[in-house]
Amino acid sequence: MAMAEVGPGVAGGSNRQALSDDDKAGRDLFLTWATAAGCTHEYDEIGNLFVRREGTDPTAAPVLLGSHLDTQPTGGRFDGVYGVLGGFEVIETLNDHDIETHRPIELCVWTNEEGSRFQYSMMGSGVWAQHLELDAALALADVDGITVAQELERQGWNGIRPATPSEYAAAFELHIEQGPILEANELEVGVVTGVQGFRWYTIDLGGHPVHAGPTPMEGRQDPAKAIGQIITQVYEMIDGYAPWGRATFAMFGSDPISPNTVPERLHCSLDIRHPERDALDALDAGMRKIVATEAEKLGVTHSIRVDNDSPPVAFAESCIEAVAASTEALGLSNQKIISGAGHDACYAALHVPTSMIFIPCAGGLSHNEAELITETQAAKGASVLLGAVIRTASR
Amino acid sequence: MAMAEVGPGVAGGSNRQALSDDDKAGRDLFLTWATAAGCTHEYDEIGNLFVRREGTDPTAAPVLLGSHLDTQPTGGRFDGVYGVLGGFEVIETLNDHDIETHRPIELCVWTNEEGSRFQYSMMGSGVWAQHLELDAALALADVDGITVAQELERQGWNGIRPATPSEYAAAFELHIEQGPILEANELEVGVVTGVQGFRWYTIDLGGHPVHAGPTPMEGRQDPAKAIGQIITQVYEMIDGYAPWGRATFAMFGSDPISPNTVPERLHCSLDIRHPERDALDALDAGMRKIVATEAEKLGVTHSIRVDNDSPPVAFAESCIEAVAASTEALGLSNQKIISGAGHDACYAALHVPTSMIFIPCAGGLSHNEAELITETQAAKGASVLLGAVIRTASR
Repeated sequence: MAMAEVGPGVAGGSNRQALSDDDKAGRDLFLTWATAAGCTHEYDEIGNLFVRREGTDPTAAPVLLGSHLDTQPTGGRFDGVYGVLGGFEVIETLNDHDIETHRPIELCVWTNEEGSRFQYSMMGSGVWAQHLELDAALALADVDGITVAQELERQGWNGIRPATPSEYAAAFELHIEQGPILEANELEVGVVTGVQGFRWYTIDLGGHPVHAGPTPMEGRQDPAKAIGQIITQVYEMIDGYAPWGRATFAMFGSDPISPNTVPERLHCSLDIRHPERDALDALDAGMRKIVATEAEKLGVTHSIRVDNDSPPVAFAESCIEAVAASTEALGLSNQKIISGAGHDACYAALHVPTSMIFIPCAGGLSHNEAELITETQAAKGASVLLGAVIRTASR
Repeated sequence: MAMAEVGPGVAGGSNRQALSDDDKAGRDLFLTWATAAGCTHEYDEIGNLFVRREGTDPTAAPVLLGSHLDTQPTGGRFDGVYGVLGGFEVIETLNDHDIETHRPIELCVWTNEEGSRFQYSMMGSGVWAQHLELDAALALADVDGITVAQELERQGWNGIRPATPSEYAAAFELHIEQGPILEANELEVGVVTGVQGFRWYTIDLGGHPVHAGPTPMEGRQDPAKAIGQIITQVYEMIDGYAPWGRATFAMFGSDPISPNTVPERLHCSLDIRHPERDALDALDAGMRKIVATEAEKLGVTHSIRVDNDSPPVAFAESCIEAVAASTEALGLSNQKIISGAGHDACYAALHVPTSMIFIPCAGGLSHNEAELITETQAAKGASVLLGAVIRTASR
């Protein structure tokens, strides 16, 4: 809990936004521990911090662990932090038992996973994976106009190691589930087989603003009527894609600010998710058809803007197997699970055989200062990670 | 069109907000015409301007005409103005033909009908009808903190005539329809039998803000899903109250501003209208049941705030008859019609036998600078008013 005291939140959680002084204090604390454990470290060009425990063959492709230490402004104490400290627990346990591994182990603290201060989530791993241009990331600015480049320099994190994917034998990210499934199923471990793809849309409907009183219902070009049908039908559609399909409408707004005028404009966001690309495409097409049909029926104009398009990730069978074998060997109850949220592991998976390990969190609550796991739960997840690392780093 | 040149709008309409210098210029222009026509005038305590053409029996209860000269900030050239100038045309026509009436005729220019600068619509007639306290109206302030009392004094409109209902034999208000019905039915005149009651609500739904990705659809407490059902079912309900029932959802908003979080709060306004109190009550009860049922089904909290409750008005049979007889005598095509919008005549009707006369306006457009009627249409409406006045003022 020493880490949770760095950059405390307002309600028992944490506030260590990316590249801030609190983020620096968190990493520095971690580095005192890592250095004491005999690890070396270096920063890459985007500030990703790589801590290394040497292997018996220093030239062998390492095993990559890690997650992030930055948090949401009102973040919990475990999102990301648990993956870094759980990875470090693996290193310490190997030290404690004088276990040498064939392969080196690298534990990465990825820069700006949350994307709240600098609005690009999984920024550090995205650059590393060559999904995001280094220069574009360096130019990102916070609300005060301070750029990532300026902050990297100020914190001394503008490393010389190239922010490009080097060779790894395997990658594992330990994380809290951030959802309620494991808790509901009373299971100790989630063996993560992939990450849902998601698409973010802004749906914008244009109506004819007429007086609510004298204008008959018939013939109204009313975007509110259209959105009622659109919401209802999209939810019906998503039911056909249970249990992994997800649809979330949010960010509603309308003009004019008048209770007795049919809205001239009504807009909302829509987040659609599915772990399979074909299903995501089908949901996309189905949603577009619903919006077009209902809007046209009422003479309402419509536009659908894609704000984000994150493809599904299928993790490597070899790594899923390593996690499953470790879990079974420890006798822990478990299930295969799909991650609903994005993680740095998604980008790692573009270049390295990768998997993740989930443990349950109370009520599935995350991105919330009340985020909670027990010590026992945390220890079980770290033990699974240890087993997976030993299985992949030994040869 | 001389009146439309006073306080011109930005797009061919008018901007004569209540108690402004432009409103004063409009009334002053009107008074030069009224004085030239031999009328006397006086202001009451809330600035309602009464212009009087004497009857052969000055002690007889007068016939009351009139409407308003103030406009919306981007108002049309006819809303209100047509009722005042159409009423004045009746007086001039009586003068031109040397017709004396038994009863006096009073033409009232009501103060602040629009309620845009000082936010209480039909303020002057509301005070006169004792629906709104005089002191409350005088204390209303605009965005600059200037009160109605201050402006009445500045413009010299703080009259000594009590702002209370005196005795009238009948009241008629001539107005553009502000809706599309007469135009669609290709009719020249609407014989207005009453005014719809309306209720304004704010519907507020409270959900559980969880991550759009990891949280299964099942068990979500999602106000967006609830509002989809609520909108759809309220529209279905209103269809059962065709052609006069109306429902208008507007002013949508939700929190948090995050596309990947189920809304914690979602709110919108709802305007429900019907000309009969029983039906309005049934719509109120039906809407409350829909909201409660759908919210409870999803574990979403709900509240329904009533922001405005304006009861339906049924006009006097005697006055409806006078309008209908005048219309028929002129051979004008017509229909009985219910006003969807509120008018000063609603308050007059609380104390005086009242009716209204509608003429079509282009596309049903109003509260818009493009508001349009033809000279021929205007003349027909004024002729109907003349006939109704002669029928009621003669005895």
